Amino acid sequence: MAVVVIGESLNATIPAICDAVKAHDTAYIQKVALEQVEADSDYLDLNAQVTGRDELIDLPWMIESVRAVTNIPMVLDSSNPPALKHAMETIDWKGQYPVLSSINNKKGSAQTLLPLAAKYNTGIVALLLDDNGINHTAKGRFEICKELVAKSRDAGVADHNLWIDPLILPLGTDDNVGPISFDLLQMMKAEFPQVRTFCGLSNVSFGMPHRALMNRTYVAMLAANGMEGFMINPRVKEMRAMIYAIRALMGEDEKCGKYIQAHRDGLLLTPMSDDQKARLTEQKAQEEEKARKKAEREARRAAKAEGGEG
Amino acid sequence: MAVVVIGESLNATIPAICDAVKAHDTAYIQKVALEQVEADSDYLDLNAQVTGRDELIDLPWMIESVRAVTNIPMVLDSSNPPALKHAMETIDWKGQYPVLSSINNKKGSAQTLLPLAAKYNTGIVALLLDDNGINHTAKGRFEICKELVAKSRDAGVADHNLWIDPLILPLGTDDNVGPISFDLLQMMKAEFPQVRTFCGLSNVSFGMPHRALMNRTYVAMLAANGMEGFMINPRVKEMRAMIYAIRALMGEDEKCGKYIQAHRDGLLLTPMSDDQKARLTEQKAQEEEKARKKAEREARRAAKAEGGEG
Repeated sequence: MAVVVIGESLNATIPAICDAVKAHDTAYIQKVALEQVEADSDYLDLNAQVTGRDELIDLPWMIESVRAVTNIPMVLDSSNPPALKHAMETIDWKGQYPVLSSINNKKGSAQTLLPLAAKYNTGIVALLLDDNGINHTAKGRFEICKELVAKSRDAGVADHNLWIDPLILPLGTDDNVGPISFDLLQMMKAEFPQVRTFCGLSNVSFGMPHRALMNRTYVAMLAANGMEGFMINPRVKEMRAMIYAIRALMGEDEKCGKYIQAHRDGLLLTPMSDDQKARLTEQKAQEEEKARKKAEREARRAAKAEGGEG
Repeated sequence: MAVVVIGESLNATIPAICDAVKAHDTAYIQKVALEQVEADSDYLDLNAQVTGRDELIDLPWMIESVRAVTNIPMVLDSSNPPALKHAMETIDWKGQYPVLSSINNKKGSAQTLLPLAAKYNTGIVALLLDDNGINHTAKGRFEICKELVAKSRDAGVADHNLWIDPLILPLGTDDNVGPISFDLLQMMKAEFPQVRTFCGLSNVSFGMPHRALMNRTYVAMLAANGMEGFMINPRVKEMRAMIYAIRALMGEDEKCGKYIQAHRDGLLLTPMSDDQKARLTEQKAQEEEKARKKAEREARRAAKAEGGEG
């Protein structure tokens, strides 16, 4: 399955979006939506949850604001199933239904959303979490995965509509966060090849320096183990460049056409580091030294030849 | 197994090194060696092959030049088995023998080096290549791998001393170079858990724009599938930073101590892109706007309160 980017920036936990929701600032929401579309998002995540406000009003407003400027598919992100149900049932989706986010394996969690996903034949995100919280082994989390797959099949949700989020924990809390996720992905791919995998990513680098470096390194590592969906900010140029490289290296970019086009569009270029500049200077100096030596040799040879002739 | 960096820069196919070999310029060789050691190489690759010169003289000279300034382990890289044999037998290695590179599965290829590796109980690189050339499927290349493992076991080489190089082809020649390598690594890890995997990397991006981006993306993807050894230039700051992130994400860096130290040493910092700068400016403007609105609200509230009192 192809690597898919879900733009993360229309989320009311971000202060500027929270303000825009409160003011119903349609222009700002549309601006952020279009920026993410232009940065090659495949989906946009929408979260309009603001404490003390009515999500049954704010979520449809946000959806319609975005739909007025783009027909990109959406992921509706809410911890309030009635708000998602309301949005599904009152908006004219013109057949292109949003992915619903999210259920988990806690008791009762899936009772509203699974039937909704089945009814509209659309995607649903499931977090590998149950009443015991998050399991800290690949095997334990895979058990939760199996239960969620069984539940979603029972509810009539097709495997390819189930988006499993294995939950990425901060590396600062456990050195084995990486290997656990790689093992888990391999198990899931082997047992449920049609089920999608999806993740919010930035949690991995929580509390770490240079989070952007760690985040984009992890994206490449997860993709190489079959992770399909990444909720990221594609407007960050370095991350976007890496996504082009990842798709090419996953065999998803015929003759690297999109990678090469991205290069032509100036999307792969990052500024040269001091280190690169120093190396370039060194290389140039070496080439000059080489040219100088060659000129010397030729001069000596010419002098010798003249001497021989003389 | 841990991610291991083999510094690639002492190679006579690089013009400056070729010149240094011809001139027996010990100081230059030592400078490049020390730079690679300071950039955290775990091994140094040494190649002293220059057409028309005597490798039995040049290789020992290069080895002794490097050993005079560092005791880092070496990989001896040559297509001339007698030169490797000579170096093994005439140099006093003080028990720390170099890895020998390389054999393949062509008829007769391994007859000198395998017994030599067994005798000294040291590492040997084996390329997944036979008389038919390079096989272009994961399964086909895995067959060659099985034969090479069998041969090396027969010769008395321990599995952990065999470094299999799956051979990284240019992505420009085949869209499936990435997936083939990931599948192959998973097969190798499952069947021969003790055998090491190793690769020269930069071939993948041959003919592509922004090779550095593609190379370092691929390192992360290969490492996440169990590739252990990478022959790279660790003096390239972006690649080195990525190696720190990879090791942390592979669970090989206790409490991310080395990653955090690298950050403190300024090794993870890359300059801000124009894009990052623009976003930072935007963020700052938003915060200022927010502060302004808050001040306005407070001013209105204060005015109202005063009015109420009046």
